[in-house]
Amino acid sequence: MRIRVIVPITSPDFNEMCSIEAKTFLSDEAEVDVVSLTHGPASIESYYDEILAAPHIVEAVQKAEDDGIEGVFITCFGDPGVDAARELVDIPVVGGFQPAVSLALTLGDRFGIVTVLDNVVPMIHDLVAKMGVTSRMASVRVIDTPVLALHDGEALVTKLFEEAQVAVTEDGAHVLILGCTGMMGVAAAVQDRLSDIGLKVPVIDPTGAALSTLRAYETMGVLHSRLTYMTPPEKART
Amino acid sequence: MRIRVIVPITSPDFNEMCSIEAKTFLSDEAEVDVVSLTHGPASIESYYDEILAAPHIVEAVQKAEDDGIEGVFITCFGDPGVDAARELVDIPVVGGFQPAVSLALTLGDRFGIVTVLDNVVPMIHDLVAKMGVTSRMASVRVIDTPVLALHDGEALVTKLFEEAQVAVTEDGAHVLILGCTGMMGVAAAVQDRLSDIGLKVPVIDPTGAALSTLRAYETMGVLHSRLTYMTPPEKART
Amino acid sequence: MRIRVIVPITSPDFNEMCSIEAKTFLSDEAEVDVVSLTHGPASIESYYDEILAAPHIVEAVQKAEDDGIEGVFITCFGDPGVDAARELVDIPVVGGFQPAVSLALTLGDRFGIVTVLDNVVPMIHDLVAKMGVTSRMASVRVIDTPVLALHDGEALVTKLFEEAQVAVTEDGAHVLILGCTGMMGVAAAVQDRLSDIGLKVPVIDPTGAALSTLRAYETMGVLHSRLTYMTPPEKART
Amino acid sequence: MRIRVIVPITSPDFNEMCSIEAKTFLSDEAEVDVVSLTHGPASIESYYDEILAAPHIVEAVQKAEDDGIEGVFITCFGDPGVDAARELVDIPVVGGFQPAVSLALTLGDRFGIVTVLDNVVPMIHDLVAKMGVTSRMASVRVIDTPVLALHDGEALVTKLFEEAQVAVTEDGAHVLILGCTGMMGVAAAVQDRLSDIGLKVPVIDPTGAALSTLRAYETMGVLHSRLTYMTPPEKART
Amino acid sequence: MRIRVIVPITSPDFNEMCSIEAKTFLSDEAEVDVVSLTHGPASIESYYDEILAAPHIVEAVQKAEDDGIEGVFITCFGDPGVDAARELVDIPVVGGFQPAVSLALTLGDRFGIVTVLDNVVPMIHDLVAKMGVTSRMASVRVIDTPVLALHDGEALVTKLFEEAQVAVTEDGAHVLILGCTGMMGVAAAVQDRLSDIGLKVPVIDPTGAALSTLRAYETMGVLHSRLTYMTPPEKART
Amino acid sequence: MRIRVIVPITSPDFNEMCSIEAKTFLSDEAEVDVVSLTHGPASIESYYDEILAAPHIVEAVQKAEDDGIEGVFITCFGDPGVDAARELVDIPVVGGFQPAVSLALTLGDRFGIVTVLDNVVPMIHDLVAKMGVTSRMASVRVIDTPVLALHDGEALVTKLFEEAQVAVTEDGAHVLILGCTGMMGVAAAVQDRLSDIGLKVPVIDPTGAALSTLRAYETMGVLHSRLTYMTPPEKART
Repeated sequence: MRIRVIVPITSPDFNEMCSIEAKTFLSDEAEVDVVSLTHGPASIESYYDEILAAPHIVEAVQKAEDDGIEGVFITCFGDPGVDAARELVDIPVVGGFQPAVSLALTLGDRFGIVTVLDNVVPMIHDLVAKMGVTSRMASVRVIDTPVLALHDGEALVTKLFEEAQVAVTEDGAHVLILGCTGMMGVAAAVQDRLSDIGLKVPVIDPTGAALSTLRAYETMGVLHSRLTYMTPPEKART
Repeated sequence: MRIRVIVPITSPDFNEMCSIEAKTFLSDEAEVDVVSLTHGPASIESYYDEILAAPHIVEAVQKAEDDGIEGVFITCFGDPGVDAARELVDIPVVGGFQPAVSLALTLGDRFGIVTVLDNVVPMIHDLVAKMGVTSRMASVRVIDTPVLALHDGEALVTKLFEEAQVAVTEDGAHVLILGCTGMMGVAAAVQDRLSDIGLKVPVIDPTGAALSTLRAYETMGVLHSRLTYMTPPEKART
Repeated sequence: MRIRVIVPITSPDFNEMCSIEAKTFLSDEAEVDVVSLTHGPASIESYYDEILAAPHIVEAVQKAEDDGIEGVFITCFGDPGVDAARELVDIPVVGGFQPAVSLALTLGDRFGIVTVLDNVVPMIHDLVAKMGVTSRMASVRVIDTPVLALHDGEALVTKLFEEAQVAVTEDGAHVLILGCTGMMGVAAAVQDRLSDIGLKVPVIDPTGAALSTLRAYETMGVLHSRLTYMTPPEKART
Repeated sequence: MRIRVIVPITSPDFNEMCSIEAKTFLSDEAEVDVVSLTHGPASIESYYDEILAAPHIVEAVQKAEDDGIEGVFITCFGDPGVDAARELVDIPVVGGFQPAVSLALTLGDRFGIVTVLDNVVPMIHDLVAKMGVTSRMASVRVIDTPVLALHDGEALVTKLFEEAQVAVTEDGAHVLILGCTGMMGVAAAVQDRLSDIGLKVPVIDPTGAALSTLRAYETMGVLHSRLTYMTPPEKART
Repeated sequence: MRIRVIVPITSPDFNEMCSIEAKTFLSDEAEVDVVSLTHGPASIESYYDEILAAPHIVEAVQKAEDDGIEGVFITCFGDPGVDAARELVDIPVVGGFQPAVSLALTLGDRFGIVTVLDNVVPMIHDLVAKMGVTSRMASVRVIDTPVLALHDGEALVTKLFEEAQVAVTEDGAHVLILGCTGMMGVAAAVQDRLSDIGLKVPVIDPTGAALSTLRAYETMGVLHSRLTYMTPPEKART
Repeated sequence: MRIRVIVPITSPDFNEMCSIEAKTFLSDEAEVDVVSLTHGPASIESYYDEILAAPHIVEAVQKAEDDGIEGVFITCFGDPGVDAARELVDIPVVGGFQPAVSLALTLGDRFGIVTVLDNVVPMIHDLVAKMGVTSRMASVRVIDTPVLALHDGEALVTKLFEEAQVAVTEDGAHVLILGCTGMMGVAAAVQDRLSDIGLKVPVIDPTGAALSTLRAYETMGVLHSRLTYMTPPEKART
């Protein structure tokens, strides 16, 4: 399976790390490449960033299909451009949100999401409502750290652990989801820290969920519904 | 009050009609101007069209604020760009969906939406779910007519009347919403046709709802919540 | 547009204040008069008060229609008598609740209501459930002040500000609604106080919402659905 | 246990039948008396009828408590005056709706309600939403017969059977509720008719449900929550 | 009415207490006998305990029908085996959960459940979700006491009172349900303790609710829906 | 990864077919073995069948853990014994329902389920409600064929195609789920038949979904939440 990861920001600096991260979740047979955007925002932390990135994301998804790619992961927890891209292509396309939440639903009672900034909480509430699973959500908590400042792994683990602990003990979360695909390579450490204090809850890395979902689609021979994601009518678009 | 209507398509052909339509819903004191986009799709009938239009819509909203405009109506039932624009400006911004549905909630039991094409039904389901009012929706029905073919008023009224009648008698809709802002100047006629056969239900024109909502915001001195629509963090955006 | 405000209590002492308040939300062309009831409770703070007031409210609404009035606002947050009155007349009738909540839905994520006494909280929960928007409600908080003791504007603003602040910071409210139409002329001050501490959230005065909604109905030429509010069957009523 | 049935209409013509009906659902030890109202509507088939009856119902409930009555059944499916009466008295008070629906929830998958006229369907939708059980409702169907024309038992059974059958086979109802307390003495016959065609579903008579609920409260020593139904504040009420 | 209480554990030690408890909720005419299981768990505090007990419970229900019993109460708050048993017999069968919650819905705003151990909270969440009444639940709290350690009545009352108080004052519960049928004979004392500090809320004993529901079914001549609980197809079962 | 498929019926006749089916969804590295039960029902088509099978299923899951198995699939759409088994073991355990539905949520608007018999529809409704996704369900339809009569592949495809078509065109399903794990090897054919008539919707085979979910858990290093599925307290169990 040939998979392409689209990093929906203008810097290629994270491509290599995304590639390494992606490979940890894929079998050796899968080929992965990673691309970033030429235009758009430096990171996605607002509705505004999403709409700036979305046209370029969709363009990249179309190119992926043209390149013979068999599955696309738009590596952002807000699922930017996913709906639009699915209208255009006949290859599987996922973002970080829906795969992570759908897996969380199978692992325990209510889920909690720990994300970056207050700015994106309403966007996450929208996605949860749109998915129809508001009754399964315990809370959304933030570590108050911008996406581009997530690189310090140890500090990140500590902040995530602290908010995750509150999500479990005060909000009743039994399953945790890392609410940003930039929180790379830390899910296991956060899970371990929680386990060490007796909170044996799964911590879902949205990248792992997304790639597993792509693999599931391929294995099962299914594609997104073309009744939900219909081919757009032909018209002038400039 | 200075209001600007943004027609989120690339043709200026509808600007005059939109201007006339808008004025029927505003007092004489309000000033209205209408702009269309320089880039984007010819009409909005898919998620893809939405994301192509959104960056240009938001740019137009920012310009409106710079121009001293006091209220913006993005004249599309899918509310494209509304969330993002609200993050950027301190003037009221509405689309067609939320005002129409919120008014419908006050007028009777369940609402039905009659829209253009099957393509947009999932987008409307998303908006209804995101607004948290799925239990109030009777159905979404389509007249199977593209946006750019809505100009024949008489045929349009007939199609809308036929689908509206089914929405009422079979789906249990007690309030109707025209699910496209391109269905201009026909709400009253559809309402009359329904009334003639004993179905005395309100038919909501989303343009009327949107402009009334802008006026309400101004009268009440309220702006969208800046905790929901926070100013995006500063960063490079190209 | 000729509007009548029905103050659903037996004292006429608030009529003038209601008239002044109403005019702040209406254009100069609108004519407003205000009536109170001859029988009923001194204020509405219980289901019991509501049912005592309701028959007299409905009588007043019928008289309004006979007098050529074009829109009626029953100035109480519990919407007493609204459903019944709508069955009887062909002019728009609103209370304070539905217009305020429907506007709140368009302004941000979840709404919080700050009201007078614990007694009315279950009534508000009922109205929210009936409207189908429970998932959008953050909380209902009380200032523990009876309706007839709301006259001290400064103390009222302080109490509302304090509870509103908690609603935002602890309950997650992003939009606030004053949960009593007797809280006149203070919404802007509460909004300012919140803004001063960095909580830029809209504060909705239910009177403003109600009158804006009446104006919207008139502008749009819509009336409540007569399929929801059917004319009652003829029968003896004594 | 001393029980009083309040027939919330002005005619005493049904009192004897209500008394007979009530006794079929009570043990010999229970004492039942039946009263109707001196003022109000001839029957309850609208929000308007409800508010006309409610003050007189509540007065009758207060008198019941003064008379040493230990449980009150307001025999109407719309639960008119129940909330208000509960604020005033320390004896159990029920209407027809909540007991019938709460029992239905324990007997099978989704419930269907068969009621008298289209006029009352929105009132029933309100009650279902207020109770928070909309997801358990299959449908509300009507036999298009006014309350005061329900006396022809055989015709009534036939109409109820026909609508109940449709509720089961088309709407998916697995439990049926007679949606008017005036449908006396026919539940068993409707249940039998359905059973005869292979639809073995329970048919709930709201009078039986109401009296069983009163008996349950007494047996269990519970009263409605005085935090939900608080004693109204003292004030002038004329 | 001949009622059998099935104590779904292997010890007969509680049978006499259950018998005494049951009789306090039944009229003298009712005959009650109590049986425990020969195989299964010592108590039910997990999904695992439920599935171990369930086949033996169902066997006991079938025997009850063969013995001419007219109503069965499986005395466990988790309703183990209820659905399966209802498929097999034509006599009423209830557990502790559905009757208690359905009664709670009629007594006030949101209900709170106070149960034994953290282990069973997800099971209760499942039952609440399955019943479709999640929006009516305030919280589930635990006294951290195993079922077989509930015998010390005074300590039990104190623990229940303490958690119930928090459920009311912090979680907004207006009606309380004892979340284990092993909490025998203490509901009134907990209710009194709450009342003494001004919290006049009903406390529901699930045994009382279950037996009242059985009595209601008998009085009303209704049985669980055989469309929901269909007779299982014939097949080999070993 | 060593996976064990537990066929929760007493006949080993399907084990080989299950093994072949399972391997189509797994990579070559995965080892799969298949076991059936020594006691229990011949097939699962009722709550009764579920409780008869569940203790033996759980025993088999425990044995799987003892045998060093790394993931268990209980091949039944009703998820029998899954919750209980998860309390006992520290290896992933899934049934057919939750994986299939969670994947469906990511593929389109509302999902429809096509299952075997009317008997199991209420069980499926329960599972959907428990999962909190009722608003995403279009309908459950049946092909009226017992589990043990599913072997005729061609007839099965035709029946599934016919009901699936109705689910799409009348009920609004955009994603389809085969509602029985006995419907082996036909999902692709049904999907093709639907595609041939223009309904390009994914058809989910629950076996494929289950095995993909196990693989996802392994890849991501997550286990079911031990706060939801706590280790049962020690006690006598006979």
